[in-house]
Amino acid sequence: MRMVDIIQKKRDGYSLTTEEINYMISGFTSDAIPDYQMSAFLMAVYFKGMDIQETTELTMAMVNSGEVMDLSGINGIKVDKHSTGGVGDKTSLIVGPLVAASGVPVAKMSGRGLGHTGGTIDKLEAIAGFHVELSQPQFVEQVNKHKIAIVSQTGNLTPADKKLYALRDVTATVNSIPLIASSVMSKKIASGADAIVLDVKVGSGAFMKTHAEARELAKIMVQIGKGLNKKTVAIITDMNQPLGYEVGNANEVKEAIEVLSGKGEAGLVQVCLTIAAYMTIAGGIYADFNQAYLAMSGILQNGEALGKFKEFIKTQGGRVVVVEHPDLLPQAKNHVELKAELAGYLQSMAAESVGTAAMLLGAGRQTKDEPIDYAAGITLKKKVGDEVQKGDVLAVLHSNRDINLEICQILRNALVIGPDKPEILPVIYDVIE
Amino acid sequence: MRMVDIIQKKRDGYSLTTEEINYMISGFTSDAIPDYQMSAFLMAVYFKGMDIQETTELTMAMVNSGEVMDLSGINGIKVDKHSTGGVGDKTSLIVGPLVAASGVPVAKMSGRGLGHTGGTIDKLEAIAGFHVELSQPQFVEQVNKHKIAIVSQTGNLTPADKKLYALRDVTATVNSIPLIASSVMSKKIASGADAIVLDVKVGSGAFMKTHAEARELAKIMVQIGKGLNKKTVAIITDMNQPLGYEVGNANEVKEAIEVLSGKGEAGLVQVCLTIAAYMTIAGGIYADFNQAYLAMSGILQNGEALGKFKEFIKTQGGRVVVVEHPDLLPQAKNHVELKAELAGYLQSMAAESVGTAAMLLGAGRQTKDEPIDYAAGITLKKKVGDEVQKGDVLAVLHSNRDINLEICQILRNALVIGPDKPEILPVIYDVIE
Repeated sequence: MRMVDIIQKKRDGYSLTTEEINYMISGFTSDAIPDYQMSAFLMAVYFKGMDIQETTELTMAMVNSGEVMDLSGINGIKVDKHSTGGVGDKTSLIVGPLVAASGVPVAKMSGRGLGHTGGTIDKLEAIAGFHVELSQPQFVEQVNKHKIAIVSQTGNLTPADKKLYALRDVTATVNSIPLIASSVMSKKIASGADAIVLDVKVGSGAFMKTHAEARELAKIMVQIGKGLNKKTVAIITDMNQPLGYEVGNANEVKEAIEVLSGKGEAGLVQVCLTIAAYMTIAGGIYADFNQAYLAMSGILQNGEALGKFKEFIKTQGGRVVVVEHPDLLPQAKNHVELKAELAGYLQSMAAESVGTAAMLLGAGRQTKDEPIDYAAGITLKKKVGDEVQKGDVLAVLHSNRDINLEICQILRNALVIGPDKPEILPVIYDVIE
Repeated sequence: MRMVDIIQKKRDGYSLTTEEINYMISGFTSDAIPDYQMSAFLMAVYFKGMDIQETTELTMAMVNSGEVMDLSGINGIKVDKHSTGGVGDKTSLIVGPLVAASGVPVAKMSGRGLGHTGGTIDKLEAIAGFHVELSQPQFVEQVNKHKIAIVSQTGNLTPADKKLYALRDVTATVNSIPLIASSVMSKKIASGADAIVLDVKVGSGAFMKTHAEARELAKIMVQIGKGLNKKTVAIITDMNQPLGYEVGNANEVKEAIEVLSGKGEAGLVQVCLTIAAYMTIAGGIYADFNQAYLAMSGILQNGEALGKFKEFIKTQGGRVVVVEHPDLLPQAKNHVELKAELAGYLQSMAAESVGTAAMLLGAGRQTKDEPIDYAAGITLKKKVGDEVQKGDVLAVLHSNRDINLEICQILRNALVIGPDKPEILPVIYDVIE
């Protein structure tokens, strides 16, 4: 077998065999197949795609390129969730304790963020004392005892995916549905999940800009999951504006605590309850969506979710007092209010630009080893469709750095005010099972 | 400027600017842009193409990546020829002395072959004593004095093209018309040609399998040449069967001598006279094709072309006696006759398979540093359309190695005999000016 023949076959639109995919991924993982051949292959996939069988084989080849977490010591059906990434996405912080409170084990491995804000792990580290590294036996014990643990990825999981992703990033081949689908699914499967609930974001601030693309990605991931005997559901949610009001790290934790206290922005609450409902169904606790959704809503309102969050933070060493007193979370030195220059309605809010502004304030990393300013970020005061008076505060920028005009301008350009009340964006578009 | 943005722009079907092309080629030449980005770009070009302006800019960027031959010391219009490559293609050996005999200076740099047989340089080295390395002043002096010199490429010409070609070869991106066109034209322009006659091969044994592709490649190369003020003509010639009767090195020299003596296979003679005619027109000696063609034919018949060939061989140190006594050229120890197993007409002769058989006999290199067996090769005894009796010799295989059954079988499979007389293949399909 020769890699050049595999590239040519894909270039010419043919499907690859299992043997070809395994040869390619194991050769690439071991450096026997050079990056320059793989990047040509990736571009061929960008143009010619992969069918569902190839995509499933690619997923498994990446799973098999490294270690696979053994979570068999954990009682119950381990349900994982994954978001394709958006701005202000703090759902894991909320959904984790909510689902755990219902009795479904949440054994989550999460990554640090590269981009607009930190990842779930970074956000949790905004809580003083919280530690994200547990040994495998500690992890299993904690989940069995408390139903929840969220740790930083350990072990050599899906090294092929890591190498491939780094290559895609610099060769304009990130945006390929079979490559995205296999990357997401390989990580979830290697992490030991029995069932997977996917939050596929769609809109200007997401990888998937159109509903057609988002539905296709969702369908393919669900098919991969099912083909590998993992119950998989995908929920297509809005990312035309940031999720909730807070974008950053510590401020996102604060907003998560609000939601866990039975309050919070309606759209964010709806997304969290929907994801949690499908996770508890996959976990075998509830039989249908309405029942599960109502139950999740009850657990938010009756304080059980917040109680579980406290228990989780305490177990992983975090300073629990912040849950009652979120003002004890890291606070920025500098704050700038962005005010409306005219009256009307907020027409749109470019999520990606809000994210870029947050990153420039220090909330996210541009390169892998940069530190994060947990206190940095943006508090939105309006959502799309809200009425605005001239002089109203639209958003507050927080940072320990100087907040320069350029950043304010990026955020101002992201918030468009017009005279007519726009259509309100739904938060959930579709569910693919 | 970032290479990833250039890849994305091409991936999305946009045309690149001059600055982008120059940034990319100079960065690639200096290793600042890694192979893995360039190969993704090449695959994007495979799918999205390049317009004529981009292709011309790419050509010039590759010319400017290295040295450019200064042939200004040579009197007259320097006309170069290039063939896109075929099996049994010994036209340079014939056309060179023919054109030189008419007074047009032939200052040719040629390569060693990688593939079915050696290149022009290897074929000339089948003549004992012939040397292919001349200093720049010797080269200029020899052309001014004898009107012809053929030397091995020296100097650091088009290093970007060399690097790109090596990458294309292993990433299934060879077969892209703008990449082929810019590669050919950059080499010819860096070699110092004032005018260029291109022999674009079409058919089963050529890169271009269809007439549409061949015409497109020809048109683009002619447009590039004209855009750079180099008079350029492309002749589209047949490569559904090998050119002439001989495939190899020493045996191709022998066939060239036959043609230069006014004999030889009609198709081969016609191709050589046509190329030579366009070269002499470009060189300003003749005004129109018919006049030039007749004149070239005369020079073949009256012995002037053969005389010029002898003078050329002698000047570059070769053993001239072989011209009168071609049997003194290297002779193989082993010969096998391939005989017809049934009667009929030769329907087709897969040029590529004939070439593969020749390579396996030792006539070509599979890797860059392999030696060539000058005596190895194949002598065809029939051409497509010829009548065949059972037991007739179809071809003779020559080699200093043992000639195994596998090689004979490859050749046998390439020669298809059927009951009906097939249409005779033309040798020249079109001329693009």
